[in-house]
Amino acid sequence: MERTEIATLGEFGLIKRLTEKFSVRNSSTEKGVGDDAAVLDYKDKKVLITTDLLLEGIHFDLTYVPLRHLGYKAAIINFSDIYAMNGQPKQITVSLGVSRRFSVEDLEELYAGIRLACNEYEVDLAGGDTSASMTGLTISITCVGEGDEGKIVYRNGAKPNDLICVSGDLGAAYMGLQLLEREKIVFETSPNVQPDFTDRDYILQRQLKPQARRDIIARLRKHNVLPTAMMDISDGLSSELFHICTQSNVGCRIFSDKIPISEQAAMMAEELNFDIVTAALNGGEDYELLFTVALDDYEKIIGVEGIGLVGHIVPAESGLVLVGRQGEEVALKAQGWNSLQQEGS
Amino acid sequence: MERTEIATLGEFGLIKRLTEKFSVRNSSTEKGVGDDAAVLDYKDKKVLITTDLLLEGIHFDLTYVPLRHLGYKAAIINFSDIYAMNGQPKQITVSLGVSRRFSVEDLEELYAGIRLACNEYEVDLAGGDTSASMTGLTISITCVGEGDEGKIVYRNGAKPNDLICVSGDLGAAYMGLQLLEREKIVFETSPNVQPDFTDRDYILQRQLKPQARRDIIARLRKHNVLPTAMMDISDGLSSELFHICTQSNVGCRIFSDKIPISEQAAMMAEELNFDIVTAALNGGEDYELLFTVALDDYEKIIGVEGIGLVGHIVPAESGLVLVGRQGEEVALKAQGWNSLQQEGS
Repeated sequence: MERTEIATLGEFGLIKRLTEKFSVRNSSTEKGVGDDAAVLDYKDKKVLITTDLLLEGIHFDLTYVPLRHLGYKAAIINFSDIYAMNGQPKQITVSLGVSRRFSVEDLEELYAGIRLACNEYEVDLAGGDTSASMTGLTISITCVGEGDEGKIVYRNGAKPNDLICVSGDLGAAYMGLQLLEREKIVFETSPNVQPDFTDRDYILQRQLKPQARRDIIARLRKHNVLPTAMMDISDGLSSELFHICTQSNVGCRIFSDKIPISEQAAMMAEELNFDIVTAALNGGEDYELLFTVALDDYEKIIGVEGIGLVGHIVPAESGLVLVGRQGEEVALKAQGWNSLQQEGS
Repeated sequence: MERTEIATLGEFGLIKRLTEKFSVRNSSTEKGVGDDAAVLDYKDKKVLITTDLLLEGIHFDLTYVPLRHLGYKAAIINFSDIYAMNGQPKQITVSLGVSRRFSVEDLEELYAGIRLACNEYEVDLAGGDTSASMTGLTISITCVGEGDEGKIVYRNGAKPNDLICVSGDLGAAYMGLQLLEREKIVFETSPNVQPDFTDRDYILQRQLKPQARRDIIARLRKHNVLPTAMMDISDGLSSELFHICTQSNVGCRIFSDKIPISEQAAMMAEELNFDIVTAALNGGEDYELLFTVALDDYEKIIGVEGIGLVGHIVPAESGLVLVGRQGEEVALKAQGWNSLQQEGS
């Protein structure tokens, strides 16, 4: 494969090469890449803003994550945060720190993934910053989105008796990661063994090419359901329930047999001798939506495709409780994936 | 000094500790830290957005840059980009990647600097992301600001005969950096020699605690001058003139004896046997404003304190020309500081 050194283009040549294929599609993007700041016009909409920082060796492993998928995912996880406010993502800025290990073609792959995500979700690239780094790849994406007055959903609005809902299924992204980590070790010890990914496509896709649930937001609107609280599940159901319950000053009861699990994730967990409910509770990276709705909306919400009820909100003094398959009750633990406790020097 | 390991607080404890001292001062900040996204209300204002990524070893050297100053500067350079659009900065998000070398107290120092900048410039902290890193410190700041319809100043509006103006003076931040680099080498070879910074306070302050020129923006408004093009000088006058001339499709003539130079910068340059005009043209990090105004505004602009005229805009075919002290003409080179050509692995 061709390898063009980044230094041959210079900063502005590189930015031009990476950004010129992006077209502008939102009327709110008045001026994108190319000035000191982007200019956006949100008129009577609320402005939502979220940001994520991804560091090589902490958040991704380029041994098994293709750069195109990494770019796609880096964008998606920001869109997911905007949907989790019941908003629509509209613009992103992308900042990169790149070491000399990476060529222009590598960065074009990364941007191809970002562009694909922008095309699919109708989001504009509006700026960024590109710099050398001493080691590895750093990706910082900020996403701006719009929300409607009175329709923005925060984490702090859950009330006792509200129903707790989850979109899609949980734990598959984590099981996909476990599979990739296992195959990486196999490859390191026996480089000639080809990994067998038959019937693993779903969990791999959940890890490598997650989706943001724009469709769920659209369906809730269509069914005239406004959640009382919402967030996306990036650190695991357990950790996110803690956020909603703490900020709403409530407790919750969830039922382990109601947690939506895919067949492939369950099979992988069994093969690896891993408890799939633990993966769903603490695994993270599913980017599904966790939300609460008023009990009065029960009839409406059960008609919405792709949403499962996992429990209900209780008063704060009842705590956060997981009810097991035999009716046993255990206190939920907020042991979501915490990158700050990982290794580093 | 006390040292608390970051892992003892966890991600959310750390975020709480770092952000709880920030108060919200702008009515446009409806919801700041603590949800999936911040919620901003810009009503009938335009939204400006800019972002900067700072990486240890590339953009800063903690050998001589105190963390508090680093935090201050990281915020200021973003505010500067918003002023350079003739806007007002209103919110920032701060993302950090931190290795285990850093303690909670270190990050509190960094945030103390960010908070000082926010207080002085009346900007709110509205979110961010905090993560472990494998090596060193990464700071990614995004700034959101407001601009008025019809009053936003881009880089592409310069016209032939416009006057080219610069605020403050140039080259001092670069000479401050040269002094710090020299003293670092002295210290490494003779740790007992105390650096002598007498009469160096101005150039050190320009490097370590730059200001964003909110005052200039306010004065231009007061004097009813709307620049035709504007940007801030982060990479050196020469590089920025190339941006304005390229985007406006014009050329320029600037006069080396009109470039504003401080006495301390000139003295330092002489001592280091360095050409101070070269430092002003290519040194960068001055965060002054470069702008063009219509010739009709000449009477108004000469009445504005802190602004110097350095030349004028000419048709594109005349090129970008620097006129020397003896009237000699040389073509300007865009050799602004380019972090992509630095070392890395």
